[in-house]
Amino acid sequence: MNEPSSSRALPRRVAIRDVGLRDGLQIIPRTVPTALKLEWLRDAHAAGLREMEVGSFVPARLMPQLADTAEVLAFAKTLPGLVASVLVPNLKGAERAIAEEAHAMLVPISASHAHSLANLRKTPDEVVAEIGRMRAARDAAGSHTLLEVGISTAFGCTIQGRVEESEVVRLVQAVLDAGADKVSLADTVGYADPAMVSRLFEKVLPVARGKLDSAHFHDTRGLGLANCYAALQMGVTRLDACLGGIGGCPHAPGASGNVATEDLAYMLASMGIETGLDFDALLVLRKKLAHWLEGEQLHGSVWQAGLPKTMKKKEVAA
Amino acid sequence: MNEPSSSRALPRRVAIRDVGLRDGLQIIPRTVPTALKLEWLRDAHAAGLREMEVGSFVPARLMPQLADTAEVLAFAKTLPGLVASVLVPNLKGAERAIAEEAHAMLVPISASHAHSLANLRKTPDEVVAEIGRMRAARDAAGSHTLLEVGISTAFGCTIQGRVEESEVVRLVQAVLDAGADKVSLADTVGYADPAMVSRLFEKVLPVARGKLDSAHFHDTRGLGLANCYAALQMGVTRLDACLGGIGGCPHAPGASGNVATEDLAYMLASMGIETGLDFDALLVLRKKLAHWLEGEQLHGSVWQAGLPKTMKKKEVAA
Repeated sequence: MNEPSSSRALPRRVAIRDVGLRDGLQIIPRTVPTALKLEWLRDAHAAGLREMEVGSFVPARLMPQLADTAEVLAFAKTLPGLVASVLVPNLKGAERAIAEEAHAMLVPISASHAHSLANLRKTPDEVVAEIGRMRAARDAAGSHTLLEVGISTAFGCTIQGRVEESEVVRLVQAVLDAGADKVSLADTVGYADPAMVSRLFEKVLPVARGKLDSAHFHDTRGLGLANCYAALQMGVTRLDACLGGIGGCPHAPGASGNVATEDLAYMLASMGIETGLDFDALLVLRKKLAHWLEGEQLHGSVWQAGLPKTMKKKEVAA
Repeated sequence: MNEPSSSRALPRRVAIRDVGLRDGLQIIPRTVPTALKLEWLRDAHAAGLREMEVGSFVPARLMPQLADTAEVLAFAKTLPGLVASVLVPNLKGAERAIAEEAHAMLVPISASHAHSLANLRKTPDEVVAEIGRMRAARDAAGSHTLLEVGISTAFGCTIQGRVEESEVVRLVQAVLDAGADKVSLADTVGYADPAMVSRLFEKVLPVARGKLDSAHFHDTRGLGLANCYAALQMGVTRLDACLGGIGGCPHAPGASGNVATEDLAYMLASMGIETGLDFDALLVLRKKLAHWLEGEQLHGSVWQAGLPKTMKKKEVAA
């Protein structure tokens, strides 16, 4: 037995950003009608979610299911206190996000050279340069749209395999130098484990200048919540998730997708961490999603088992 | 952001005890033929498992599916290096375990007074007294059967709700005083979260005299592996699990059961912790179980997604 040491302090409050409307729908080959997306947003907001990724400014021919992003974003901005983000893969997308006054634009940059070429047809350094241009465009427009960069495949890559920690550290530094307001680490393909999460955050935080407070985990191999816990121990206070654990990896058909919002909300509440979420309202929306996405496999555990007897619903909503 | 601190040292090697033949089969209302149980044992041993809970010495009329425990145990003892445990609920069961020369007998004691009465029709203190009699019987027989006590419902109870940490501490002390060789903590109903695990181990370890090195988690609400990780951070080096995540809680039908052996093996191997397990062989046996238990829902993630490209199979078998 090791000598037990006292618990690492966990954050008192954590924000979950539900990314279902983008990361979730992105790999689902069907179009959810805009009206249902607005209902989804309204219900998510009513359940207490205050950060949502609502779509992506990519060419409609590439992702027709996200072609209504501008409309969805416009509605999201009417919901009080909601921070609405959109994914933007390039300067063109960023210009749209700025024009549509998104609260935040999320730029993926892959720490895997091979993934970057396959996914964006650019090297990571070319993406860094593009981020510089996005920042310049944002500043030139006098816009308040936050520029957040997500380091994808930060824990490994299905194409390239191993991703060096030093490359992740280098990219974090580079995107901050290029003008990113925030940076986060993403386990795009479900390769992370909790020890890896601790180790990578330990290496990256010293160069992140206080601008790294969030993480994005997939539950592809069942370690999503363990990885979230490890990230919380490193001081992360914002975590991405999808209601019903939708989304995921086209390379692992049938496997779990993103961490399930409702399971993460339960884990946080059980640990006494405030999320502002109404658990029952989340489950009602989950049921709607199951209906809207009929035929898609939803994931997660706590919707089935229910809350422990020891946990009052009020505690979850705390 | 909290100030990041350096990672807690994780153990270098961890033993998984597969409890499928007892905890798994216990709630499945069908009888697996003895010949298949022996095949199960043989394959599990060949896959590298060196601790197995093989059955229970309870009256056959209460649990007909475990009525062949003596025969299964006798076979388990022929497998080189395998530590074969049996569950014993009372002195009578312990006497059989001693007579049959089980390597270890596992005695459940519930930290929930209500659960203890419902499950064993005894108060926890009556069980403590019974443990004293088991120890006396073991010593009188000059037997080497290890006496391990599992504190069940240590993290909460579906009947009683909250379980006081002080009661768990008191019982650990009491069962060691009564002569237990080892003690472990069990989340019988899936109420634990990783912060709770850290906190309870921190309270219990100082009174455990080096005799608490294992834990037993259910994945009822999706936190099984996160809880295992928290236990590893507290120095635990033995973890219970079931291949395919069978077993579980009769109060949460359809919900996940025990932590899945193969997912736990993957998490440990990914973190560089030795388990001695052959991942492919585990998955072959999992497929057999799916067939033998057709109609029962198996759980787990990594069997579906496969190992990461970064992880050579040899690494898992390390």
